[in-house]
Amino acid sequence: MVAMGRAARAAARPLAEAPADQRTLAIREAAVALRRRVDVVLAANAEDVLAAEGRGAPANMVDRLRLDPTRIAAIAGAMEAVAAQNDPLGAETARWSPPNGLDIARVSVPLGVLAIIFESRPNVAADAAVICLRSGNAAILRAGSDSLNSALAIHAAVAEGLRAAGLPETAVQMVATPDRDAVGHILGGLDGAIDLIIPRGGRSLVERVQKEARAPVLGHLEGVCHTYLHASADLEMARKVVLNAKMRRTSICGATETLLVDRAGAERLLPPVAGDLIAAGCELRGDVAARALVPTMTEANEADWSAEYLAPVLAVRVVDGVDQAVEHIVRHGSGHTEAIVAEDAAAAARFLNRVDSAIVMWNASTQFADGGEFGFGAEIGISTSRLHARGPVGAAQLVSYKYVVRGRGHVRP
Amino acid sequence: MVAMGRAARAAARPLAEAPADQRTLAIREAAVALRRRVDVVLAANAEDVLAAEGRGAPANMVDRLRLDPTRIAAIAGAMEAVAAQNDPLGAETARWSPPNGLDIARVSVPLGVLAIIFESRPNVAADAAVICLRSGNAAILRAGSDSLNSALAIHAAVAEGLRAAGLPETAVQMVATPDRDAVGHILGGLDGAIDLIIPRGGRSLVERVQKEARAPVLGHLEGVCHTYLHASADLEMARKVVLNAKMRRTSICGATETLLVDRAGAERLLPPVAGDLIAAGCELRGDVAARALVPTMTEANEADWSAEYLAPVLAVRVVDGVDQAVEHIVRHGSGHTEAIVAEDAAAAARFLNRVDSAIVMWNASTQFADGGEFGFGAEIGISTSRLHARGPVGAAQLVSYKYVVRGRGHVRP
Repeated sequence: MVAMGRAARAAARPLAEAPADQRTLAIREAAVALRRRVDVVLAANAEDVLAAEGRGAPANMVDRLRLDPTRIAAIAGAMEAVAAQNDPLGAETARWSPPNGLDIARVSVPLGVLAIIFESRPNVAADAAVICLRSGNAAILRAGSDSLNSALAIHAAVAEGLRAAGLPETAVQMVATPDRDAVGHILGGLDGAIDLIIPRGGRSLVERVQKEARAPVLGHLEGVCHTYLHASADLEMARKVVLNAKMRRTSICGATETLLVDRAGAERLLPPVAGDLIAAGCELRGDVAARALVPTMTEANEADWSAEYLAPVLAVRVVDGVDQAVEHIVRHGSGHTEAIVAEDAAAAARFLNRVDSAIVMWNASTQFADGGEFGFGAEIGISTSRLHARGPVGAAQLVSYKYVVRGRGHVRP
Repeated sequence: MVAMGRAARAAARPLAEAPADQRTLAIREAAVALRRRVDVVLAANAEDVLAAEGRGAPANMVDRLRLDPTRIAAIAGAMEAVAAQNDPLGAETARWSPPNGLDIARVSVPLGVLAIIFESRPNVAADAAVICLRSGNAAILRAGSDSLNSALAIHAAVAEGLRAAGLPETAVQMVATPDRDAVGHILGGLDGAIDLIIPRGGRSLVERVQKEARAPVLGHLEGVCHTYLHASADLEMARKVVLNAKMRRTSICGATETLLVDRAGAERLLPPVAGDLIAAGCELRGDVAARALVPTMTEANEADWSAEYLAPVLAVRVVDGVDQAVEHIVRHGSGHTEAIVAEDAAAAARFLNRVDSAIVMWNASTQFADGGEFGFGAEIGISTSRLHARGPVGAAQLVSYKYVVRGRGHVRP
């Protein structure tokens, strides 16, 4: 593993110095290689699926794991979309001249070596690889043991793209064994070879990373997202937005987990909104005031207010206005995404201003918390860290900068 | 200490929500209070100076510690300069509409709670406090035991400014005891109350922080800065720039520690440049080729190439062109600041492009590596981290952002 770190560090410089076109070519050629290798990838994936079924893995997990020709074409298409993105390197993001007369420019540069640790979805191997190539960062990828064969087959296509573009194959390496010690080595920083660790997985992975990592981490712990219905909310909009925010997909981090409803609007808003959710198969857990309006709700306990269900379950609380909604979110939220539904612009402004989450929304579904929806192309995740990058993280967020200072023999007095 | 962390976390919200004018007022009133308290601050400082002299501290250390009415006026002036700066919060740094029709804005927000650990210069207490107020971050300050009385006296003025502006005094707290365990508690993160640790001190502090910190750290380990004389360098410019880069002040992190000289220009450039340095009292340690040209140089050993002398000592090496200079810097530098002196614009461009340090310079003294010289106002240090902020760190670098998303009932397909 230490040798892998050294190889990544050595590859980081030529990759950083490679022109945008060369990195674009590597991504395009990797997509071409993936399309050409469909059969090999499907065979590798069949092994992973068989093993998962043999272990008795739940059906939704097996489904996340399973590839078919359409899914592989979609992965290749996503790679090509990243190839078409603007290159984030070498951009002059500021330029000025202070009173001393120097000419100072701030120029974007890669971060260096990223270690990305992920779990079951094999497409993450492709996303992570091409996002790193687009941002000029060398990568060490560590796939979950469930998807290792699939991920290695995809990685082979990436290696082919790197070769075709004349870039070092070690620019994107993948740990080839399911050994759990590999994660420990990566978290230890591989002798200083890793500039940033990005975990992408469930709570146990993220907690291990937070506990053991000796290199900086960019990640997110949880998405305990809230939708708040202000008393001024339009009923039809509230019904549509809440149903989508909770039920479109319940397993993603941007799914709403708690619904807050203004007391002044609860009688008008809550019964129809709850009716839609129940009809769609959602379990509701409410406080006393909410249950008074929707008697079929079960009783919420304290743990429900902080729960990331990732399932068709919703906690429901009645609150007294914007400030109490904000206080609830401060206390129980995870700083991911929160939305207000309101016609009253002043109330919305107060909510957007006071709620300090990575993403705050007005009259929109929290399920829009996604790099693709933000227009970032592929994303490597949503950061709930406050440092460096917050919210959706794509290639443009995985850069640093340097200052380029031009003088004419300037000396400091 | 944990109570201090909780108080800081509680103060962070009202501080973040306070308008720019209120934070400006707090800074101005702190400066007023400091000017009014000159006698109290001088008395506290006299205790620190007496104790240092009693311990037999070196004269330059005692000098760094000593305040006088002029120095205190300068500290108050620096505070007022920060009060006059643009406020970095609430700025819309990007706004766009992706294909889904949402209106997305990226808005700057504070980081939260910063812990700043510093050593002997008491003015850092003032700089750190006002930079945090300007950026809306709550602060926990930990002064070195050498300067604790002075720092506490300055902190009392900051507390008066906070009261006068109607902000919580706990927005800027200072550890009141010289207990070294306090550093350990802060590095432990105070139960998650600290968002960022900023060490400002010597190598032993920075190494302790890097080893023990359980919260993110922004700092710099060393400034092993290089000046490279390209064969095309103008002789008079080279003499002036190198003398300033090394000798203006030898104790700052932007002082040049190694001089690289092109073999093709060494005979023309090195003897006069070395002569100036020797005349100014600088010791030179060279490789064989350098010593052949300047026989009074002592012999450099391997450790000299990585040394941060912070003293009138300079390592000197002859290299074969830009790429060998870059390789030397990659191997031995600390990623802080490197300069090239050259008339050849293509050679300079190659150097500026290939050297990946926080600051790269062309025809200027490395001693310009400073937030004030960059026009940032007060700085809390120079970051050699690659994440979040790199190079000089002022109030504008101590912010995060959130995304404010406005829809019209948007739901995700």
